[in-house]
Amino acid sequence: MTVYLVGAGPGNSDLLTLRAARVLSEAQVVVHDRLIDPSVLALVNSSALRVNVGKSPGGAISQEQINETLIELARTHISVVRLKGGDPFVFGRGGEEALALRAAGVTCEVVPGVTSAFAGPLAAGIPVTHRGLARGVTVVTGHPSSDDDNYFGRIAHHDLTLVILMGVGRRALIADQLMAGGLAGSTPVAVVERAWTSGQRVMRGQLDGLARLDVCPPAVIIVGETAALDVGAVLSDAALVS
Amino acid sequence: MTVYLVGAGPGNSDLLTLRAARVLSEAQVVVHDRLIDPSVLALVNSSALRVNVGKSPGGAISQEQINETLIELARTHISVVRLKGGDPFVFGRGGEEALALRAAGVTCEVVPGVTSAFAGPLAAGIPVTHRGLARGVTVVTGHPSSDDDNYFGRIAHHDLTLVILMGVGRRALIADQLMAGGLAGSTPVAVVERAWTSGQRVMRGQLDGLARLDVCPPAVIIVGETAALDVGAVLSDAALVS
Repeated sequence: MTVYLVGAGPGNSDLLTLRAARVLSEAQVVVHDRLIDPSVLALVNSSALRVNVGKSPGGAISQEQINETLIELARTHISVVRLKGGDPFVFGRGGEEALALRAAGVTCEVVPGVTSAFAGPLAAGIPVTHRGLARGVTVVTGHPSSDDDNYFGRIAHHDLTLVILMGVGRRALIADQLMAGGLAGSTPVAVVERAWTSGQRVMRGQLDGLARLDVCPPAVIIVGETAALDVGAVLSDAALVS
Repeated sequence: MTVYLVGAGPGNSDLLTLRAARVLSEAQVVVHDRLIDPSVLALVNSSALRVNVGKSPGGAISQEQINETLIELARTHISVVRLKGGDPFVFGRGGEEALALRAAGVTCEVVPGVTSAFAGPLAAGIPVTHRGLARGVTVVTGHPSSDDDNYFGRIAHHDLTLVILMGVGRRALIADQLMAGGLAGSTPVAVVERAWTSGQRVMRGQLDGLARLDVCPPAVIIVGETAALDVGAVLSDAALVS
């Protein structure tokens, strides 16, 4: 009768919240995305039903079908967890799912998670804000709606760190728009590929060379003076997954 | 010999990561800010030394003194935790502390946390991104450096949610600049006071009335179409602290 919208954080189960871990261990059903790490799913109790609704490219499951699935499951189970990477309310469409559940009369509790938008840069030693370099941070995806030719140019600010999720495939266009919007070609950029996994790779360069960096998704792109930083903090080996 | 820069999340210990809780329980010394919730400090083992370096208004402890304290403690203890509200690399000056530790030859590990910038809005039912309303989110503080008369006007975008931390005292100036920068006076705003506590209050209105809202710090200000949303998700009673 309750659906828990739970943030799984950026990868390994070590970065789940205590509440998320408890809710997962008590769930009767867990509905999860494609990229949830096996270490997180290992926290689900073995008698629970697991439903993978990962929307693979060209996949058949629409957001509306996911909403319907959650409502249906909530009617026949005490505790349903909807598990999403990062935070459920940051590009997770968790808001839409919560609204659909409310419209159907289903109680919905939300459990925040560590967002990949900040934990990705952190994994490369990049604080998204830093005195003298960035007074704030903007987070967007690389796939805005298509009705705006200069979307990235409009949001370019030299004193805000820009974090772009799901932008690898459009990085040439993004760099062009940012430079047209006023950012210098020499603005530092970093790309963190597979953050918080043992396969993590960090590439650094400058904005006018972003298109030529050899990167594959999933990756987070950081643009701004902070992207040149590596504050030297290490990650726990235990926090990295294969 | 290791300093752990640990994010404490937005309030109650239930929202700490599993790794943060473990590191806290094993620490010999915990150096923390003023606003860390007692439920979080309760996870520190009873034999550990606790050092409060909270910078109260007019307080005497500078960032340089905090850096020196951490380096000094690291030289005489195996495990020192530097505990910060939210995430250590989002307005936490964690990057500066990590750089100072590295310069002193001290190993530093960073443990991300749930940022108050997103968990504050979430506590009011506000997703910072939402299809059709906000394609991204910008996070700033209300206290930028003073050399820019139109800072908030420059970063105003109608299709990005703006989250302002520590901005209550300057909300009249912020609203004026945002409107001068092009945001309509009717743009929705929300203020979440004491998010994730039993004293949480949510006020809503519009940008041209922000100055008149009766609010006290600590509070987070949300500006943009998403600020009018309440997706109806509930918070766990267990996650609220007094």
